[in-house]
Amino acid sequence: MDERSALRRLAAALPAAGDDAAVVDGLVVTTDMLHESTDFPSGTTRYTAGWRAVGASLSDVAAMGADATAAVAAYAAPTLDESELDAFLDGAIDVCEAVDARYVGGDLDTTGEFTVATTALGETDAPVLRSGANVGDVVCVTGALGRTAAALRAFDAGESGRGNDLFRFAPRVASGVALAPHATAMMDSSDGLARSLHQLAEASDVGFEVSWDAVPVHDAVDDYAGDDADRRAMATTVGEDFELVCTLPADAVDGARDALSVPLTVIGDVVDGGVRMDGELLADEGYTHE
Amino acid sequence: MDERSALRRLAAALPAAGDDAAVVDGLVVTTDMLHESTDFPSGTTRYTAGWRAVGASLSDVAAMGADATAAVAAYAAPTLDESELDAFLDGAIDVCEAVDARYVGGDLDTTGEFTVATTALGETDAPVLRSGANVGDVVCVTGALGRTAAALRAFDAGESGRGNDLFRFAPRVASGVALAPHATAMMDSSDGLARSLHQLAEASDVGFEVSWDAVPVHDAVDDYAGDDADRRAMATTVGEDFELVCTLPADAVDGARDALSVPLTVIGDVVDGGVRMDGELLADEGYTHE
Repeated sequence: MDERSALRRLAAALPAAGDDAAVVDGLVVTTDMLHESTDFPSGTTRYTAGWRAVGASLSDVAAMGADATAAVAAYAAPTLDESELDAFLDGAIDVCEAVDARYVGGDLDTTGEFTVATTALGETDAPVLRSGANVGDVVCVTGALGRTAAALRAFDAGESGRGNDLFRFAPRVASGVALAPHATAMMDSSDGLARSLHQLAEASDVGFEVSWDAVPVHDAVDDYAGDDADRRAMATTVGEDFELVCTLPADAVDGARDALSVPLTVIGDVVDGGVRMDGELLADEGYTHE
Repeated sequence: MDERSALRRLAAALPAAGDDAAVVDGLVVTTDMLHESTDFPSGTTRYTAGWRAVGASLSDVAAMGADATAAVAAYAAPTLDESELDAFLDGAIDVCEAVDARYVGGDLDTTGEFTVATTALGETDAPVLRSGANVGDVVCVTGALGRTAAALRAFDAGESGRGNDLFRFAPRVASGVALAPHATAMMDSSDGLARSLHQLAEASDVGFEVSWDAVPVHDAVDDYAGDDADRRAMATTVGEDFELVCTLPADAVDGARDALSVPLTVIGDVVDGGVRMDGELLADEGYTHE
């Protein structure tokens, strides 16, 4: 059973789960576990790890259109080194402050592999689910895609300063709150744009027709991309960018943009069925978290 | 740096943490990470693991005198086996139902060692901290101690059915809520009675004089204890029993008992300084989570 099958199983068993976060009486809660071998390339500082791990959960709160209130983290490492723990806590606290949430503590443990489990909390009276997209809506993304793909190339190239900078993304909490009154469906792009579109399509029982030329590509991608196919893969299938992917009525785009402090780009339309880019079927491939 | 030093460091950095759980605007949140090598002896079923891991976080909510509302878990294992995951989820859901909370989902991941991170949420207008004990109060425990020590002996003896039964404790959420109006200080006994008394003493700047004869010992202890010293160690230093240890004015004990559905036993008095059992200093030893 791969993780997606297991997550579907978990979602089926639990009516409150299955979206980016669970919502119980207006309280939003989401949890993630990250491991050194799969989530923190060699060169990732503990400050960046704290920022990114807590940020990933804050992004799930943002994807519900909810305001983030607090986060906790459980930290496990082969040894509890004081300076590493301090750096991790600084990163966790700073990313919470960046979205006006509070880091309120956690748990510590020793284990064979550096592992972090983060939980973020939020609140909303009207969560934006993945299931509300309507044919005729447009589909948009915040910010630019490919930032994490570029970071991974930077780490591979030994440019760990650049890798760390790119790895510390800004969770789109304010954007999610601002989009909530306008968006019909929303999720974050943690599995990559292609997979996110497929997940929204499945949840909303619709299709998408998007244009590659319209996709906003992060500047750093051009520093590492080989050819155009590579550039496209970096922006659409590597994922872990934690931007928001949402649908909204075309006439709501201007109002939404006015409420946002980051770019909102229309990349295509919600259609009857099928997920296509420039008229061709877009494969459901991306980052399967393992 | 051992875990207690690290936790103190974390508590010092974060005003909202440092008790059994953090409290933010009436919302209680607590997180724990457990690992197969340190927390789940050979023979522990995944059902029991789900029950116990989520139960440990619910116990931290109970220790604040708060009502538990919801829990999530992040589950990581070398392979995502369907029947193991189902059993884990059943245990997680059942322990939540046992305390009228909701299990609302989680995260899945593969990693080298079976690892679970759980987060529980609760709510309270008046959390009971560790720091409110007054000289002249009495100190009490709920239920009986040594249950987990007996479970570990059962697992060691290959009696895994018994071990699993004993490992699935009932989180004292209803007891915590019932004690909250009476208790001046409270925590759970997850580090063992001896260490819990030292932690309450430090937080409240008081001492304790307790009587070993008064300590309620779980029936199963007598099936595994060697001599009286062993019996005492099983009940006071092994820990992980998840009972509540609390202080309250002596004249409040009867009222508290009436509100509880489990036994509440007075084991001693809050005094000026020093933690003593039968007049002798009680060593600050117990389970240091690693």
